[in-house]
Amino acid sequence: MIPTQQAVLDGDKMAMARLMTLVENDDPKGLDLLRKLFKHTGKARIIGITGPPGVGKSTLVFKVAQAFRKMGKKVGIVAVDPTSPFTGGALLGDRVRMQDLSTDEGVFIRSMGNRGYFGGLARRTGEVVDILDAAGMDIVIVETIGTGQAEVDVVRTVHTCCVVLVPGFGDEVQTFKAGILEIGDIFVVNKADKGADKVVMELRAMLDLAVDRDKDAWVPPIVKTAATTGEGVDELIKAMDGHCGHIKGSGRLRLKAVEKAMRDMDLLLGEKFMAGFMKKKGMRERFEAAAKKVANRKTDPRTAVERLTG
Amino acid sequence: MIPTQQAVLDGDKMAMARLMTLVENDDPKGLDLLRKLFKHTGKARIIGITGPPGVGKSTLVFKVAQAFRKMGKKVGIVAVDPTSPFTGGALLGDRVRMQDLSTDEGVFIRSMGNRGYFGGLARRTGEVVDILDAAGMDIVIVETIGTGQAEVDVVRTVHTCCVVLVPGFGDEVQTFKAGILEIGDIFVVNKADKGADKVVMELRAMLDLAVDRDKDAWVPPIVKTAATTGEGVDELIKAMDGHCGHIKGSGRLRLKAVEKAMRDMDLLLGEKFMAGFMKKKGMRERFEAAAKKVANRKTDPRTAVERLTG
Repeated sequence: MIPTQQAVLDGDKMAMARLMTLVENDDPKGLDLLRKLFKHTGKARIIGITGPPGVGKSTLVFKVAQAFRKMGKKVGIVAVDPTSPFTGGALLGDRVRMQDLSTDEGVFIRSMGNRGYFGGLARRTGEVVDILDAAGMDIVIVETIGTGQAEVDVVRTVHTCCVVLVPGFGDEVQTFKAGILEIGDIFVVNKADKGADKVVMELRAMLDLAVDRDKDAWVPPIVKTAATTGEGVDELIKAMDGHCGHIKGSGRLRLKAVEKAMRDMDLLLGEKFMAGFMKKKGMRERFEAAAKKVANRKTDPRTAVERLTG
Repeated sequence: MIPTQQAVLDGDKMAMARLMTLVENDDPKGLDLLRKLFKHTGKARIIGITGPPGVGKSTLVFKVAQAFRKMGKKVGIVAVDPTSPFTGGALLGDRVRMQDLSTDEGVFIRSMGNRGYFGGLARRTGEVVDILDAAGMDIVIVETIGTGQAEVDVVRTVHTCCVVLVPGFGDEVQTFKAGILEIGDIFVVNKADKGADKVVMELRAMLDLAVDRDKDAWVPPIVKTAATTGEGVDELIKAMDGHCGHIKGSGRLRLKAVEKAMRDMDLLLGEKFMAGFMKKKGMRERFEAAAKKVANRKTDPRTAVERLTG
């Protein structure tokens, strides 16, 4: 059954969940409703929390969500990390704690983990964020492991990206330097009770080297937290608010919206071309026959593709 | 300068490196040479070594490469993980050790880390593997973090996928269950000197539940290693040989070749459609104007795409 537009706009959880499932399955009626809802998006603040497994991302998401709830904000959580407790992939204790949050009327949690999409994860994650946005969530938190192409792609479309590290993880911050400095708007050193000074110092030094020294440039703050006790979470929220104000003032927020639109359109165009191509009469069979020839080295993939499209 | 076909086939390192760079940059002459080389591929054994950062993947790759070298095999290494020492992203000590390997005439190392591809990582990784294969490498080892859509996609095309875990990482094996059981042909519990029995037991129990109990099905072995001392590496090589024999005997190797061809063709088709589309007169401008309208919520991404393609 297709939910009504009004039910989704009203934040009816059942309607939202149903629409998300329809959209994930590429149901035409679901996609049609998504289309209509789109003009109601653009109001939510999208926050990314990213980092390798084991750094305590989910606990941090939990605490950040609680903090926003105390301010009366409605919070959506999208877990892209398949090892997140939100996706059911982790410890029972964590899952129980997350359930506390999921029974809160002002919180909506959706897991994107482990559904075996081929190429469609980034697009679908963006659409789930859109549904949460249209449904009146003030804050949408996207939790992702942050490595991997589709995942980095997801992270690039959030408004504020928090990169979470822990002291002593892999012994050195350097392990993370590749790629991660560019995507972080805020760096969080979690489990800071285990001695965060070294990692903070190294991170600061690397950021000072790497970050563009434009006078209007955002200087990523480093926040120390201990997510299990909640220490540092208020400071993190303040840093998030600071970044939100910065991107509004600098025009970066507007630029991000255009970038997100371009990415969404790009992904849809690719899917549309492929679907149209494969629907041609006999194409599926021709494609499979060509793949067999390639596997036998009778031809190469580029020549095969040229013949199929020529 | 374009290397000659013969130089690549002879395993000339300079020629191989040059061709890889040309292919990564989509240079037409480089792609043309790749096309001609393709019929010389299909001989190498492709092994994936995958797992989260910090489990000692690179040290394991190093030891496995050494073991194959001792058997007189030529070894290619493709590092997709941006935190790998092979990509220059890690500790100096590790980098120095890896350099020992890179001065070995029978070893060729290529890093795919951190080049900021948008959507082309899986395709390019496959092409670098093809070049190593054509150049006469007997073994190609692909090191990847194994989470992330493009990365899982890479892992699916190797012949034998080794998933590396460590005791006590994230406290429980369960953290890894989502997605990782399906892709592992061999499970490696590294740093086994730190007490691997619990993780081996849990893993065994999960595999017994998860794995298809077909009488011809491969039962993934669990190998305990201590990569820094080299303990267990011989057993791992034996397990790899066992899996190689199994997929040859069962016809799975042949099926994998067809699957890889289909994936390669799929990626090339997508790229070809997009490139052709964007080359249309005025399309880039129309695309950007449409993205601005989407960002302003004057239209939605699907409607914008329909108008551009209609």
